[in-house]
Amino acid sequence: MADHFHKMHGLGNDFVVIDAREKAVSMTAARARAIADRHNGIGCDQLILLEPADDADAVMRIFNADGSIAEACGNASRAVALLIGRKAELITAGGRITVEPFADGATVEMGLPHFGWDEIPLAYAMDTSAMPVGWEGLSDPAAVNVGNPHLIFFVDDCDAVPLDRLGPLIENDPLFPERINVNVATLTGPNAIKLRVWERGAGLTLACGTGACATAVAAIRSKRVTSPVEVSLPGGILTIAWAGGEQITMTGPATHVFTGETHWANFD
Amino acid sequence: MADHFHKMHGLGNDFVVIDAREKAVSMTAARARAIADRHNGIGCDQLILLEPADDADAVMRIFNADGSIAEACGNASRAVALLIGRKAELITAGGRITVEPFADGATVEMGLPHFGWDEIPLAYAMDTSAMPVGWEGLSDPAAVNVGNPHLIFFVDDCDAVPLDRLGPLIENDPLFPERINVNVATLTGPNAIKLRVWERGAGLTLACGTGACATAVAAIRSKRVTSPVEVSLPGGILTIAWAGGEQITMTGPATHVFTGETHWANFD
Repeated sequence: MADHFHKMHGLGNDFVVIDAREKAVSMTAARARAIADRHNGIGCDQLILLEPADDADAVMRIFNADGSIAEACGNASRAVALLIGRKAELITAGGRITVEPFADGATVEMGLPHFGWDEIPLAYAMDTSAMPVGWEGLSDPAAVNVGNPHLIFFVDDCDAVPLDRLGPLIENDPLFPERINVNVATLTGPNAIKLRVWERGAGLTLACGTGACATAVAAIRSKRVTSPVEVSLPGGILTIAWAGGEQITMTGPATHVFTGETHWANFD
Repeated sequence: MADHFHKMHGLGNDFVVIDAREKAVSMTAARARAIADRHNGIGCDQLILLEPADDADAVMRIFNADGSIAEACGNASRAVALLIGRKAELITAGGRITVEPFADGATVEMGLPHFGWDEIPLAYAMDTSAMPVGWEGLSDPAAVNVGNPHLIFFVDDCDAVPLDRLGPLIENDPLFPERINVNVATLTGPNAIKLRVWERGAGLTLACGTGACATAVAAIRSKRVTSPVEVSLPGGILTIAWAGGEQITMTGPATHVFTGETHWANFD
């Protein structure tokens, strides 16, 4: 019997979504890598697996293109909201989130941000609002965990940062025992940020939803901007709202591109 | 009603194949580009459209990822053979070809090679077996048209050639009024060639079937190797046979990855 999947994207961050709520699908890192391969496989930034949950609508498991596990993915959450088609609660490795779809997008309650050095996590204690560290001209970042760990540099011109070179360097620095997503952000107004993100396990992407959340929270926390914040990414715009102490909400588009039929065994 | 397609590849050169033999599909350059987009669309190196033919099994139209038209594509021919499932004749913009599938690949009669300067075409007359031209250390190429135009440089180490930089430079040289595919080849035995190809309209690819044909023919014609020739590309091996004056035959693998269902109007 054939296996089915959905191809979706949120701001060009693209996903193979497998709805395994009724029929279990066995997924390994190697199989996820083979599926994510853009030439020999189906091709995606992340593979999303929906599984049954006892006390929620689904468990959402996220595999990066390199086969590694991602705790959270804001863009994927909006895509899954669109697929489920009604307000739903999802359990991710990064925590419990609530999603609510609209015609061509969704609002996602992303949970609470965490700022403790051991919650990012960092290798040793330091102030996460302006860390006394630097890499080739990038310095004093903030760190926020929004289900997954983010480092945020506020810079004058984010387009001028050689993120393709510095991203992997910072991602794999021993300061980050679980590696880290690297955000470079430029303030463009009292409620507006321009952002580029190097995603852990995925590299430079068109739009990182959790990066937008983490960056907006860091900017609101440091009084650089006020909520809600329009975050402009290469793939489009996300609106992030956060009143200190409360849930982060992210609103943005999601698109269903096609449904597919294959045999997962072909990817072993 | 939903629209259907197939995703296939030959040596990692990947295709969206639309079988429009029974139900017409309108295809424009813009729509082909949107479909080929790997993040917002389906993603492929080339889009293949099969249409009804009066005196053959199908017309095979080929769109590059940039929306331009390709006259011929060896890897796509093997994929189409697998899809049709029996010996078939296809009409391409580069000429008539015969394909015959086997379990996980196909043999394709690619037609006759053409060596006339005006058949490549070049902008002015010259000997196409060793052209008195050069680009930054690459010189004296051969030119062959095997349905589409190819330039072949025989070099000591094809991996050392900066093809990502020289490819677009040569492709767009005014010497080639219809642009050109750029092949860099290294002899590795009396019947063996290692090959890298810069494809017109597609860039560096894992494997170019017509490039393998053109390169093997140029090497056989100049007595560098004897037929049949194993051509080793980054994506795998193709076997090319040619007895001067006759059809070129190419044998190699093809893979059906998945079938998909969407609405073509979503890509406008």
